[in-house]
Amino acid sequence: MLIDTDVHERVMYEELLPYLEQPWKRYIEDCHWIQEKHMPYTQPAVAGVDRADARIPDGRPAGTDLSFMQQQLLDANNHEKAVLTGALDPSPSSMHGWYEMATALATAYNNWQIDKWLDQDERLYGSIHIAAQEPWNAVKEIERIGSHPKMVQVLLPIDDKLWGDPYYHPIFEAAQRHNLAIGMHHNEPPVYYGQWPKYFIEWHTLIPTSHMNVVTNMIFNGVFDKFPDLKLIMIEGGFTYVPFLMNKMDQQYTDLRHEVPWVKRMPSDIVRENMLFTTQPLESMKKKELMQIIDQLGSDEIISFSTDYPHWDYDSPDAALPPNLDDDLKEKLYTENARNFYPKF
Amino acid sequence: MLIDTDVHERVMYEELLPYLEQPWKRYIEDCHWIQEKHMPYTQPAVAGVDRADARIPDGRPAGTDLSFMQQQLLDANNHEKAVLTGALDPSPSSMHGWYEMATALATAYNNWQIDKWLDQDERLYGSIHIAAQEPWNAVKEIERIGSHPKMVQVLLPIDDKLWGDPYYHPIFEAAQRHNLAIGMHHNEPPVYYGQWPKYFIEWHTLIPTSHMNVVTNMIFNGVFDKFPDLKLIMIEGGFTYVPFLMNKMDQQYTDLRHEVPWVKRMPSDIVRENMLFTTQPLESMKKKELMQIIDQLGSDEIISFSTDYPHWDYDSPDAALPPNLDDDLKEKLYTENARNFYPKF
Repeated sequence: MLIDTDVHERVMYEELLPYLEQPWKRYIEDCHWIQEKHMPYTQPAVAGVDRADARIPDGRPAGTDLSFMQQQLLDANNHEKAVLTGALDPSPSSMHGWYEMATALATAYNNWQIDKWLDQDERLYGSIHIAAQEPWNAVKEIERIGSHPKMVQVLLPIDDKLWGDPYYHPIFEAAQRHNLAIGMHHNEPPVYYGQWPKYFIEWHTLIPTSHMNVVTNMIFNGVFDKFPDLKLIMIEGGFTYVPFLMNKMDQQYTDLRHEVPWVKRMPSDIVRENMLFTTQPLESMKKKELMQIIDQLGSDEIISFSTDYPHWDYDSPDAALPPNLDDDLKEKLYTENARNFYPKF
Repeated sequence: MLIDTDVHERVMYEELLPYLEQPWKRYIEDCHWIQEKHMPYTQPAVAGVDRADARIPDGRPAGTDLSFMQQQLLDANNHEKAVLTGALDPSPSSMHGWYEMATALATAYNNWQIDKWLDQDERLYGSIHIAAQEPWNAVKEIERIGSHPKMVQVLLPIDDKLWGDPYYHPIFEAAQRHNLAIGMHHNEPPVYYGQWPKYFIEWHTLIPTSHMNVVTNMIFNGVFDKFPDLKLIMIEGGFTYVPFLMNKMDQQYTDLRHEVPWVKRMPSDIVRENMLFTTQPLESMKKKELMQIIDQLGSDEIISFSTDYPHWDYDSPDAALPPNLDDDLKEKLYTENARNFYPKF
């Protein structure tokens, strides 16, 4: 059995139309509004950012069809649960301007997700998408569907305000109150001086640096002191950078905690108590190497297996982890750590 | 004995005047030109960014007096060699505009460094500062003093062009031809959307992410394929992030090398063959933890001890490394790795 913490369903824009009111619907239907383009790279793999074999036989893109996903992913791997993380690219959260449309799109997307996915398969759990440009509207959306039993987290954008900013406090308060985790799924931060790196391989290598920024910023700005029960899941950034970051933050906290007196726990304790890291994309490693990293983390309970289906660098539950892991550890990585992390599981 | 790979001498601006011609001299003397301010933080420690006990007894700032440095650092720790990394803040390289003055300041600084430090103590080695805004002028400066027997490296700026850019090729070519390493000393990159993090502790924790950017960018843009003998020293970023970065780059290279066909070696091999990482600021760690990291690096020859004298987070050669290391390893960390790295040692 597997609880898969990162699965991407994808919407075709026309599917959102029934969930949109005017004038937003007309913007898409009559004015041919399209999402921003955002990836300045050649394709990483033959089918772009998707697995070639995940394309729907009728020609629709990967991730758009529930029954195909059931067959290729959920049934094939004996999934107990899968958390949908979406692919409305770019997220409404990263639209600049068009705030009302961003809010309408987020609401439409959430309703579509519930109708077409969460209500159709008991294994599927969802992510609340918000338009964080207007935090009070985002809070309204969390209030509206936050108590849906299958909505387990709120995805926040990576934009010009890092998540330690008090700007997000109302969102954290609402998430905590509704037993929702906060999720970071990397979404295309400019890595350097507002510029994309020249090559996809650079950008893709450096994605974890955005995760380091967010974790560091939230901890030292006191988010987990103000919201001690808030859960943070770091998705698609991997976990092999975490030992470095924990030790570095602890050392800095030891030297400089007078600057941030509101931070009451050692940063590594906050990481272990409030966070979960999804495994994909897993570097290839031997059992000994994985055990070394777990030893450095000081916990085997803060990482959780994810496939990132249907993307090109999908990790297979059968092959991605090194062989011959102890059953106890496998159970933690495949199911128990996610089960203990999400307040609704 | 110790080869210390990061020691900061500091210039008082008036000391540069004899090394400057008009009109630059007049800009400082008559027009009260001052360097840009750049640190928006409260002081990390009681004496700002310096060790309180490193202030010169006559009141001058830490790092400005050779005999005081000799007594407090070089003699006290039995230094065999120390590489000066400067403290002309901000470096001429990061001045925007004022290009001719930046060039004049770099030249003045280099001459002052040779006169007042390198020629005065046989243990001291130096860094060539350049105004990289005009790479052909920077190359002229490298030609002018690159063969000085005690100049061992060229320090490059962290600015809006990462070092994989072909823009820097003439500089790399000149450095390689003069047996000079290229040095990255962190100098205040904006970490996130061009903004400083709110707190010093965040910025200081995240400094290694700039090092990750530079290493990744240089490798995948083919710098070490075009200049296979070029040596890169990463100063004051520590080394505990390197195992993560090596594995991540290798995994990405395995998947995506079709995008960067000019890269001929595994990234981790390039790291091990062309780079050296200075240890400071060392996280506190036990021997077992250090040995684990060395095991993950696949080499005990790419890290080299540094003190970062006279800064507030100075690492003492007696106390910073864990106790009871094998003599062979200590010799590598304290002297041999630096000796083997610098072409002029």
